[in-house]
Amino acid sequence: MSDSIVISRDGQIATVTINNPPRRNALTKAAWELLTATIQDLSSDDDLRCIVLRGAGSEAFAAGADISEFPKERANAAQAKIYGEIISITLGAILDCRHATIAMIMGVCTGGGMEIACACDLRISAESGKFGVPINKLGHALAYPEMKVVQSVVGRALVLELVLEGRILDAREAERRGLVNRVVADDELEKEVYDTAKRIVAGAPLAARSSKKFMRRLDDPTPLTSAESDEGYALCDSEDYQEGVQAFLAKKKPVFKGR
Amino acid sequence: MSDSIVISRDGQIATVTINNPPRRNALTKAAWELLTATIQDLSSDDDLRCIVLRGAGSEAFAAGADISEFPKERANAAQAKIYGEIISITLGAILDCRHATIAMIMGVCTGGGMEIACACDLRISAESGKFGVPINKLGHALAYPEMKVVQSVVGRALVLELVLEGRILDAREAERRGLVNRVVADDELEKEVYDTAKRIVAGAPLAARSSKKFMRRLDDPTPLTSAESDEGYALCDSEDYQEGVQAFLAKKKPVFKGR
Amino acid sequence: MSDSIVISRDGQIATVTINNPPRRNALTKAAWELLTATIQDLSSDDDLRCIVLRGAGSEAFAAGADISEFPKERANAAQAKIYGEIISITLGAILDCRHATIAMIMGVCTGGGMEIACACDLRISAESGKFGVPINKLGHALAYPEMKVVQSVVGRALVLELVLEGRILDAREAERRGLVNRVVADDELEKEVYDTAKRIVAGAPLAARSSKKFMRRLDDPTPLTSAESDEGYALCDSEDYQEGVQAFLAKKKPVFKGR
Repeated sequence: MSDSIVISRDGQIATVTINNPPRRNALTKAAWELLTATIQDLSSDDDLRCIVLRGAGSEAFAAGADISEFPKERANAAQAKIYGEIISITLGAILDCRHATIAMIMGVCTGGGMEIACACDLRISAESGKFGVPINKLGHALAYPEMKVVQSVVGRALVLELVLEGRILDAREAERRGLVNRVVADDELEKEVYDTAKRIVAGAPLAARSSKKFMRRLDDPTPLTSAESDEGYALCDSEDYQEGVQAFLAKKKPVFKGR
Repeated sequence: MSDSIVISRDGQIATVTINNPPRRNALTKAAWELLTATIQDLSSDDDLRCIVLRGAGSEAFAAGADISEFPKERANAAQAKIYGEIISITLGAILDCRHATIAMIMGVCTGGGMEIACACDLRISAESGKFGVPINKLGHALAYPEMKVVQSVVGRALVLELVLEGRILDAREAERRGLVNRVVADDELEKEVYDTAKRIVAGAPLAARSSKKFMRRLDDPTPLTSAESDEGYALCDSEDYQEGVQAFLAKKKPVFKGR
Repeated sequence: MSDSIVISRDGQIATVTINNPPRRNALTKAAWELLTATIQDLSSDDDLRCIVLRGAGSEAFAAGADISEFPKERANAAQAKIYGEIISITLGAILDCRHATIAMIMGVCTGGGMEIACACDLRISAESGKFGVPINKLGHALAYPEMKVVQSVVGRALVLELVLEGRILDAREAERRGLVNRVVADDELEKEVYDTAKRIVAGAPLAARSSKKFMRRLDDPTPLTSAESDEGYALCDSEDYQEGVQAFLAKKKPVFKGR
């Protein structure tokens, strides 16, 4: 049996592939847990600067949780809570990942798959992308952590449309309504995603990490402590900031070292 | 005199019509109160699954509060507070309604009418839809509960444009800017709305109720209790969830019973 | 040396020009402080009803903070905190300004310039508008108050794209994604902006002030006090409200006096 999550690396960019093509890359409970461990492991790796998440093959990003497992693993509320907390931890691991994350989307991107994509920092879709959370056909609700991550990208109105009506949006509508950052032809997707990753990698890594962290912090309505506010300026003590300012003034390209 | 709010039912779908065509379906104080009572009554009816809100005729969804009544009913701050709390209760009743709500919009949808539409779960507009909150011409502010419901759909930037500039948006701009979910030709509106209602009705009703409730809860920045978090998984003890999973795995159409 | 901030007035409309064309209207530390003082001063002037913010010339709204000053004024975290708090106070002064504010945008609108634009109530751009926060090339993060004001306009997904990828959006994409309210041809920008200002000026000034204040208050998750809730209705004791209602019922144009 092949691994449900596959990692490959090319310099400072890692690619994490959700790998279950016969089931349109649906994630088993074990796959969710492996995805969490994978992201947490990559997050702590200082040699990395960007992670691309994708599905194996060209038919699907991910169709969500693997429902064929539900009669055994998610048969009642008690099991659903355990399963749901596993998903919640995965989404949190992506949101908290120190490196920038890009969802590279072809084909089906639904349910938990769409939640994974929404937890990423950017979503770039092929024309073939299909998006939705047709949970109304399954008979359970979108748990709070899952709803919240989708809401943070698309807002209340589209969340309600997706969960109540069970609509599937094509890539162009998803782009128009803010669910994906941009859409390209299927055969241009890989190039666009890795060009984007390279643009991110060329930027200052500490700045990217802080920006991600601060954006995440703003989801929390608790007032900032003064230590947190000060952290907004801490990077100006870094070598990279000196490099950035000097390069800007000399009209040169900065070379950042992540320190 | 005809009723200011008219109810009709067709199976699991109720239609609530704001009925004051001579005044473009503007709502009197009594109409706001009757709308609240109507929605609350329908909300508690377990035989229902979807409510369509519309205006009588084809000229207007609703032009907001009936200003002809203001010299008597909303002449000063003390009266305005009473009147405003009535509107706030109506908006809350729609937001808290257990069944999915669809605003079916033709023509004028302004002021309190637009607030009612924003409180609904979906907004489907005909090409003739006209949207705005031209409160700058009346000399009072948008009270907090009214502003908040509009903001939850369109965000800060469009709220400010609507209230400060007093602009009226046509349906296509309203769609482009997220104020309505979709726009269709006037003569296709009824079909599109009731087809949407049928798609909602075909879904699991408990899932719809929970999704609505959870979405509403996320408006409140107070941290979730563990009981609330657990509620996110409670439906997996329902018959409908078993039906949904079995139907999915058997590639059949599920039949949900709301239990 | 010319002033870094220039004020002109025409009746109830003031124009505030960020004036540093050789550096694409980048703001020095002194310019940020002068902009704050200027806005606060105009805010307290009851004869005003609208402020247009623009950049001098046609090449730029503002390119952000003037980086040529950074080696001296923003060389480390301690200085950056001081500098950042100055920017934060400027953004707060714009957000808290009692009069409606319109950012009139031609050309470059980046970094702190884009933050100024996002703090305004409306953003109207010429086709030449260019938008971004390419902070990834400089090596520091977007401090919380700056990130928050951008997020309040464009949401989490676009903030992350702008700061991580360092993309520059043209005016049409900025419009499509909600960063600007509307886009017009460069040679129509001035007319569109001042026509908009006149529409705002024709409205009730107390209503505009309250709407702005309430919208700003909704950014704060703290529950409203009952005094704050009541303030939502206070204007109905104003002369202008009586004028607005009477004018509406008489189908006349209201003349508001701001009291």
